[in-house]
Amino acid sequence: MSQTQTITAAILVIGDEILSGRTKDKNIGYIAEYLTNVGIDLKEVRVVPDAEDEIVTAIRALKGRYTYLFTTGGIGPTHDDITADCVAKACGVTIDHDPRAVAILRQRYKPEDLNEARLRMARIPAGADLIENQISKAPGFRIDNIIVMAGVPQIMQVMLDNVMPSLQTGAKMLSRSVETGGLPEGIYAEALGQIAKAHPGVIIGSYPSFDGKTFLNRIVMRSRDDATLILVEKDVIEALNQLHEAKGTGYRLPL
Amino acid sequence: MSQTQTITAAILVIGDEILSGRTKDKNIGYIAEYLTNVGIDLKEVRVVPDAEDEIVTAIRALKGRYTYLFTTGGIGPTHDDITADCVAKACGVTIDHDPRAVAILRQRYKPEDLNEARLRMARIPAGADLIENQISKAPGFRIDNIIVMAGVPQIMQVMLDNVMPSLQTGAKMLSRSVETGGLPEGIYAEALGQIAKAHPGVIIGSYPSFDGKTFLNRIVMRSRDDATLILVEKDVIEALNQLHEAKGTGYRLPL
Repeated sequence: MSQTQTITAAILVIGDEILSGRTKDKNIGYIAEYLTNVGIDLKEVRVVPDAEDEIVTAIRALKGRYTYLFTTGGIGPTHDDITADCVAKACGVTIDHDPRAVAILRQRYKPEDLNEARLRMARIPAGADLIENQISKAPGFRIDNIIVMAGVPQIMQVMLDNVMPSLQTGAKMLSRSVETGGLPEGIYAEALGQIAKAHPGVIIGSYPSFDGKTFLNRIVMRSRDDATLILVEKDVIEALNQLHEAKGTGYRLPL
Repeated sequence: MSQTQTITAAILVIGDEILSGRTKDKNIGYIAEYLTNVGIDLKEVRVVPDAEDEIVTAIRALKGRYTYLFTTGGIGPTHDDITADCVAKACGVTIDHDPRAVAILRQRYKPEDLNEARLRMARIPAGADLIENQISKAPGFRIDNIIVMAGVPQIMQVMLDNVMPSLQTGAKMLSRSVETGGLPEGIYAEALGQIAKAHPGVIIGSYPSFDGKTFLNRIVMRSRDDATLILVEKDVIEALNQLHEAKGTGYRLPL
């Protein structure tokens, strides 16, 4: 397996509306899948309310632990949008109307419509790079290893597209997955545990899902090394087939 | 406003599959809404991988900060199911096969099918109360202020129903919401900020959503005191109507 640097990340979701359950978050799953696809390992997610202490504490904790910290939410024009100020505080820099961001807002709004509230969206911590927002224009930004994005999913998604080329990415985590053909977890757990022990470099997970009547079990193997992954998948399939044979199910997974 | 004790909670989601994006979490939004409805304030959510250090650290951090900590995931029979052991470690108690949990599994499985892997699901920290699972039988548990539930949504949901009667709940957080009738955030932000300032006991949020073409803006007011909430809603509607009039939209929100 080649020695490649591991690039890690955390997501910080900022917003009372997620914690109250009123809004169902769609950003965590989207960013998680996106990062996996570009070879960044998402290691932690936190959701915190629109409260300065909570946000600043979480930013400080997460920015030091991971290569990147992605935040969503709290960068609009209303009084509850305090993310930019919290990021500035956590980074120990000043924050003011950024001329580049003001220029973007001037293109978007007529002078009489560019009121103080909207100008709040141009408050950017000193030293940050802007992240373009083709949808509603008000930019996101990146400072140090923190990427600050909107909470509205469609806007977050274009910001993520726009910032990604400037980020370091690692070797992509590859995965293979096997559906067990009706074998329940309790039957293959021992064999799977042995395979996992024999291949500490491969992350092996067992994921049951339930459709209201029956369980479907999926074994997922993840590694950055495809050759090892192929070997492990073969071991898993052979183990499952032995168990199918022992139970006389008549089922056989293709190798 | 009556003096009622605030009951708070955190959720800890345990699972590589959520962080890889392969599985999209459905539990956070469900639990968040559920807790709001019973008067428990969800204050923080974390998602961590299937790694002992991460899980134990998160449990220790969250159990001390909030009235309750709800965990999901990692209580099945496979090698990656390590939540129960991590909870025991975080609480400083021993863990072993619990006779009550073993009895439940004996009812579910024939003796020859109750193998070592399945018996892992009866490993319960010393001093814990079991939480019934009508779907797949293997129980969740509660120890101290930690409620440990399955990751499969349907199972988590019955466990939540089963544990809830034993938990302290607070005065329910009430909410009212107003759709702004096409007024964008930047137009009402200043007025809304003033209303928020005048009513520090009411949590006021502004939540834009985007359907790919237009923005819909919703103002949500939350408080445990309905009388105050009605007043604030009236202020918000009047402010929005003044802005509609000033812009000549011809739109008027009903009071």
